[in-house]
Amino acid sequence: MNEFELIARYFSRPCADASVVLGVGDDCAALRVPEGEHLLVSTDLLVEGRHFPESTAAFDVGYKAMAVNLSDLAAMGARPLGVTLGLALPSIEPDWLEAFAKGFYTLAEQHGICLVGGDTVKSPVLSLAVTIMGSAPPDRMLTRSGAQSGDLIAVTGTLGDAGLGLRSIQRPESMPPSLNPEDIDFLQMRLNRPTPRGEEGRRLAEVAHAAIDISDGLLQDLGHILRASHVGAVVEADRLPISPAARAWLAADPTQHNLPLTAGDDYELLFTIAPDQWAMLDVPATVIGRITQDKRLRVLDAQGHDMPVHVQGFDHFAPVNLD
Amino acid sequence: MNEFELIARYFSRPCADASVVLGVGDDCAALRVPEGEHLLVSTDLLVEGRHFPESTAAFDVGYKAMAVNLSDLAAMGARPLGVTLGLALPSIEPDWLEAFAKGFYTLAEQHGICLVGGDTVKSPVLSLAVTIMGSAPPDRMLTRSGAQSGDLIAVTGTLGDAGLGLRSIQRPESMPPSLNPEDIDFLQMRLNRPTPRGEEGRRLAEVAHAAIDISDGLLQDLGHILRASHVGAVVEADRLPISPAARAWLAADPTQHNLPLTAGDDYELLFTIAPDQWAMLDVPATVIGRITQDKRLRVLDAQGHDMPVHVQGFDHFAPVNLD
Repeated sequence: MNEFELIARYFSRPCADASVVLGVGDDCAALRVPEGEHLLVSTDLLVEGRHFPESTAAFDVGYKAMAVNLSDLAAMGARPLGVTLGLALPSIEPDWLEAFAKGFYTLAEQHGICLVGGDTVKSPVLSLAVTIMGSAPPDRMLTRSGAQSGDLIAVTGTLGDAGLGLRSIQRPESMPPSLNPEDIDFLQMRLNRPTPRGEEGRRLAEVAHAAIDISDGLLQDLGHILRASHVGAVVEADRLPISPAARAWLAADPTQHNLPLTAGDDYELLFTIAPDQWAMLDVPATVIGRITQDKRLRVLDAQGHDMPVHVQGFDHFAPVNLD
Repeated sequence: MNEFELIARYFSRPCADASVVLGVGDDCAALRVPEGEHLLVSTDLLVEGRHFPESTAAFDVGYKAMAVNLSDLAAMGARPLGVTLGLALPSIEPDWLEAFAKGFYTLAEQHGICLVGGDTVKSPVLSLAVTIMGSAPPDRMLTRSGAQSGDLIAVTGTLGDAGLGLRSIQRPESMPPSLNPEDIDFLQMRLNRPTPRGEEGRRLAEVAHAAIDISDGLLQDLGHILRASHVGAVVEADRLPISPAARAWLAADPTQHNLPLTAGDDYELLFTIAPDQWAMLDVPATVIGRITQDKRLRVLDAQGHDMPVHVQGFDHFAPVNLD
């Protein structure tokens, strides 16, 4: 099978999206951007062994590649327009490709987004380059730079699940024996098939001041908001939303107690919002702290004492130290 | 140096482009697409050792990554809007990154396009993922599917230079001894720093019926036009535009005589145009054949005899055989 047949076979599904004028198969794809809206674009690289364990099922690799990009649009409050996929493969394995495409398209179709272009190359290492495009009205774009002193800090969903899921795969011997199989499944699903918060992001765009998706870890990503907005924050660690599965693990293994503060890959939305807007918000979320004029990032434990903040989020080359 | 400092240091040049609302540093970049125009998007992966020899200078890697993507926009007749860069690196080498960024920005600035987003990851293999965005009025988009029987087939620039440049690097012992150093430099520059035909593409959009950029080789890329347009072609091999440097090589080494028909990487524009439009065309180009109703792709030699057409252009997994 050659490159062109490969593309035709797995990545040329018909596209019913009216915004796609020209899809896969020319020098460029052509898209209609809604009049008066800005084009939003984000790009992500995923490398096997770094962004997903080598044991990850092909379906999940495809699913996650789509999810992390939809999550970037969600964090801006944007609607999806189209996505391109660059696929660097060591070899052509039809079964793998079919499952990968299925995972990729499953989530793409749920979010009404079409694959409009791509490139496939041979490479010693499996890696993916996904670029997603979306649109939003200029006055409804959620950025990192709008946080204001006094804002509540909140997150969607629960934190730390993906980090524990990763740990269960990379260091299975470290799992508490008391953990039941459903909990392990849940944590691994959170790692392999994160849920992009598209609808939540678009609702947040109406009221929130700033937002980011949590890919690198709560404190690291909050740090991006603080730097971009020139503010600080106080986070109350015991207010972090923790799933029952993660709670079961953390109760049995106190060494991982702080993992939800720093683990990445949950792809929940972290946002800031004026306190008087909170009551009207129709997005399920949990308040975890407050934006401050004081530019430090402080984390308080259950007793209200400052915890030492060493942010070791997911930086691909070296740890970041905020304090 | 961590990932964030890396991005800040090399890839955060200020952007003066009014179409860029929000550049590097948020979850998405935000761009203004000119009212009434379509968004055009193309993505390319470049892997060291496959798309450029491992000996390629960092400047040239950056230059070429930008060039091949600008070339995709050129082939559609589009104006550039913005570009994203995914960089997978085995390690952080400041000298390499600085030279790479210089090559990338040199060409980007010439074409008035800003880097608006990106991602950097650690990977065993150096590879680049570039996604370029541009815009064009809906009635001025050059596609592959508009070729009509009777059209002239023409190309900009000269063909085979990059292929010979690559050969001079990969098999220096195969170079004719009579070749002078300036010729070799010229051929290697054509490989390492291809010239995207942006202005030419936008002019062609006014009159040409179909276009593609020659990345995989003349016959392979012409094949894409023929399939998309449901037509055939007759190409006269001895009408191909050949540079003096390539001519010197081919005269001394007849075994490479057909290389300009099949070698890739020249990034010239191949287009079809009605004969009565040719005289008015203000784009330097050479007619090399004609579109036919008969759906075969025929190549005639200097005596007017059919040459056997085995297209072995640049397919990353296997050769393509059109005949």
